[in-house]
Amino acid sequence: MGGLAANGGKYGVLSVVAREAGVSAATVSKVVHRRRDVGERTRAKVEALLAEHGYVRPGEAEGRPPQILAVFRDLVGPYTLEVARGIVDAAAGFGAGATLGTTVARSMSAWLDECQKMGAAGLVIVISMLTEHDQRRVLDQGLPVVLIDPLSPPESEIPSIGVTNWSGARDAVAHVVGLGHRRIGMLAGRPHSLAGSARLHGYRAALDEAGIAYDPLLVRATDFDYDEAVVACVDLLGTTDPPTAVFAASDAQALGVLEAARRCGRLVPGDLSVVSFDDTSVAAMAAPPLTAVRQPFAEMGFEATRILLQLANGISPASQRVELATTLVVRDSTAALSTTV
Amino acid sequence: MGGLAANGGKYGVLSVVAREAGVSAATVSKVVHRRRDVGERTRAKVEALLAEHGYVRPGEAEGRPPQILAVFRDLVGPYTLEVARGIVDAAAGFGAGATLGTTVARSMSAWLDECQKMGAAGLVIVISMLTEHDQRRVLDQGLPVVLIDPLSPPESEIPSIGVTNWSGARDAVAHVVGLGHRRIGMLAGRPHSLAGSARLHGYRAALDEAGIAYDPLLVRATDFDYDEAVVACVDLLGTTDPPTAVFAASDAQALGVLEAARRCGRLVPGDLSVVSFDDTSVAAMAAPPLTAVRQPFAEMGFEATRILLQLANGISPASQRVELATTLVVRDSTAALSTTV
Repeated sequence: MGGLAANGGKYGVLSVVAREAGVSAATVSKVVHRRRDVGERTRAKVEALLAEHGYVRPGEAEGRPPQILAVFRDLVGPYTLEVARGIVDAAAGFGAGATLGTTVARSMSAWLDECQKMGAAGLVIVISMLTEHDQRRVLDQGLPVVLIDPLSPPESEIPSIGVTNWSGARDAVAHVVGLGHRRIGMLAGRPHSLAGSARLHGYRAALDEAGIAYDPLLVRATDFDYDEAVVACVDLLGTTDPPTAVFAASDAQALGVLEAARRCGRLVPGDLSVVSFDDTSVAAMAAPPLTAVRQPFAEMGFEATRILLQLANGISPASQRVELATTLVVRDSTAALSTTV
Repeated sequence: MGGLAANGGKYGVLSVVAREAGVSAATVSKVVHRRRDVGERTRAKVEALLAEHGYVRPGEAEGRPPQILAVFRDLVGPYTLEVARGIVDAAAGFGAGATLGTTVARSMSAWLDECQKMGAAGLVIVISMLTEHDQRRVLDQGLPVVLIDPLSPPESEIPSIGVTNWSGARDAVAHVVGLGHRRIGMLAGRPHSLAGSARLHGYRAALDEAGIAYDPLLVRATDFDYDEAVVACVDLLGTTDPPTAVFAASDAQALGVLEAARRCGRLVPGDLSVVSFDDTSVAAMAAPPLTAVRQPFAEMGFEATRILLQLANGISPASQRVELATTLVVRDSTAALSTTV
């Protein structure tokens, strides 16, 4: 479809306009994206030059519905799939289309190009860490970007959405404490993950509040996935003073705990209580169905889409960081500590 | 973004061209979509009139990468999510974008409109049944459409992709027959589902080949989901001569079988072997990991995208119906029949 040539031409126009207006390419980009942080006089001059050069904003030529681009590391685990659903449903609600992509086949930097080529309203970036260079580009070019669960704290000007990881984890652990458990293990995420770190500290807070000493031997850091969790939990259950309850930092890890319990001949919840974090659709389909901290996936998708479409219209969000509340859903994987254990 | 007005105008041009060329709107649409089934003389006349009226094909104005629209009933179960991933990954491989939608918030007919408004290359429609009216529209307007796992056989001119449901099911049941099982139950899909029906007949074929009489009391028809499967399987396991193995027609149903076994105090695979169909990512994350018939999701996404982009370029597929091969993946949920059962 001759995309590169046509785009080269289009961006060529923007460069020419920047030169003729005596402003930076970033300023022209801000005017194109109707951002507010451009003086009225500059905006008028740039708009006039754009019109003179026959520039048509992407998407305006044919009255296409706005498109948002949602980029994931991959679409494998239950968490990412649930977030994808939240965004797709929310976009439909806004009359927008949601195009999904992963950084498996294409780099984040290529997706930033793609967003411009597509004439998309902007990008929702899920989990993936933006490099410093990419963050700079997003800010310099005024690209509308919203992050969901960034691995580390983003540049303060890039809005991000997450959930109350710390208090959600605290609720989960307080629930098993309330059932009489004192030896409570945790399959934590990796220490470099912002969400993982918050969940670990929520676990520690609940133990503190219950007057239970933190025992590092009961905590294993694994990726937020199944295979490593099985191995780590089999090991944990084989220790001389094993836990009677385990808090897993994700559904995939909790499924690994169920499999580890099966391999070690422990019944859940009779011998071992399990509480999970995420509450993706697989949590309710486990054997037994998992007690889990629910992330509000639909609301996350809605907020990300809403903020992104606002940004695309030049409106800054009320807050750069939104934390949505989690809720604990009690199912069959947790039970009162059996005094015979 | 003035979508409706602009589109009204665009489709206005096509109507005028049809009138002036003395052909139907459907013929003009075929020329626009570069379909082959238009005579060369008619094509030349229509192309000339399109050019005269300054018509630009959607997407060509800015050299945007092609977009494909993938529409699902919903994005809830593990099957749909896996198909979504297959399409998203395949589209990226073709340098195209994949926009996802569901018929939860918007009717199929509205998605057909959306496809035209977006200037998308065409639609992949997953599972959903197209109404006769929608099928007529797809054919009359020459819209590029590929169906994945249609609920019932589509109009012969609309290409569809599925898997070898019959032989996959036959392989699954032959596997447990080979392990010595004779009382083999099935959680089948609904009889109106094309895939469900093929899987049920594959089960019956494997029994026939092993000289095992078909016992309708061992078969329960449920939706391809978890909740009903739990109830149906608890009932099945409570009969006087219960099965020693169960074939579930989907992963969601197989997870329901695991939960039913747990509730009835049966160990899998010691007391009950379970074999599933789909092999979505949850199959390998079950306790125990499920022996399952694997659907080639990546290949399905690839074929759907490939055929759709061909159609958009006016090239008819070599075959209107593609059936991709399944493979049996043996894990821990099946074992030799214990003689003590």
